[in-house]
Amino acid sequence: MSYQETLEIRTPGRGTMDISQEVAAVVSRAGIQTGICHVFVRHTSASLILCENADPQVHQDLEAFLADTVPDGSPLFRHTAEGPDDMPAHVRSILTNMDLTLPISQGRLVLGTWQGIYLYEHRSMSHHRRIVITALG
Amino acid sequence: MSYQETLEIRTPGRGTMDISQEVAAVVSRAGIQTGICHVFVRHTSASLILCENADPQVHQDLEAFLADTVPDGSPLFRHTAEGPDDMPAHVRSILTNMDLTLPISQGRLVLGTWQGIYLYEHRSMSHHRRIVITALG
Amino acid sequence: MSYQETLEIRTPGRGTMDISQEVAAVVSRAGIQTGICHVFVRHTSASLILCENADPQVHQDLEAFLADTVPDGSPLFRHTAEGPDDMPAHVRSILTNMDLTLPISQGRLVLGTWQGIYLYEHRSMSHHRRIVITALG
Repeated sequence: MSYQETLEIRTPGRGTMDISQEVAAVVSRAGIQTGICHVFVRHTSASLILCENADPQVHQDLEAFLADTVPDGSPLFRHTAEGPDDMPAHVRSILTNMDLTLPISQGRLVLGTWQGIYLYEHRSMSHHRRIVITALG
Repeated sequence: MSYQETLEIRTPGRGTMDISQEVAAVVSRAGIQTGICHVFVRHTSASLILCENADPQVHQDLEAFLADTVPDGSPLFRHTAEGPDDMPAHVRSILTNMDLTLPISQGRLVLGTWQGIYLYEHRSMSHHRRIVITALG
Repeated sequence: MSYQETLEIRTPGRGTMDISQEVAAVVSRAGIQTGICHVFVRHTSASLILCENADPQVHQDLEAFLADTVPDGSPLFRHTAEGPDDMPAHVRSILTNMDLTLPISQGRLVLGTWQGIYLYEHRSMSHHRRIVITALG
């Protein structure tokens, strides 16, 4: 049994957006008791992460780490047609992943207490992002 | 068809623990011939990796790389309530992932000869970790 | 419903190889309308990535980033039996992942316009690589 929906999200620019409730709602509508939920972002400059959901500082620190490790405007990068954040956005997306799979038990997502599901926009400007959510069981 | 079990593991502190046999045993009990096995850690400071299973030095070198790339006590991090290994544990978990999906063929996991499945504890102290394993086919 | 095939690929050495068409062909043969496609490389020194498929420079820049971040011959590494690219290949594979899961809709892979599926060979020399592709729905 499989069930699929697509989310459309406009991001405000670089940073994380909590999509936990949206994903949980799809799982609820899927009516699957035991299985998995696959979340997928159809882009190469945004990604999906599980991250601590209590202290917003965790997200700021993660962003500080990525900005330091994959610096905008790095001389390593020559693919700069769309700006200094273009190639770093691709690298960040690959390091943090465009796909994420979560367990479903008793009809609900099984996350840890501190796990939230986040869309991570890696471009500086606002973008329209499409996320495909598939539940199987 | 889907089958699910939860493992409870106490880690001795930072480092990798081989859980290949535990995951294989769940797949064996699942009775699924062709499909996938999803492994998920319900925490934000531990992760799951596939890693070379022959030379323990590989794990020590991987730890050396992560300790160098995401240093404990880094001035980049302000989320330090639980200590200098707190925020690095979140970043390490995001870089190496909390979810892992493996193929099942002829009722067994299909891994490469040198692939082992490891729980990676990123906190310095011992922790109790819950891992949800779901087989589908 | 599940369907599985194995690809055998000889890589020319370090770098990315586009396997999008091969994966799409397996999904076509699977005959699954709504579900997921799991791709898995049975090795610890090669990985699978989604990456921008328009400008080859993106792949060269990604390689430049990884070569800079996980340098061959780094003094951090003692697992050097197979050469200076041995341990970096393990770290690169763990950072970029050996597993990848994609959505299937209306019998076809749902990728973004700019997303290609690539096998990433991290060893300097040519290798024979086995990739297991499983479709479920």
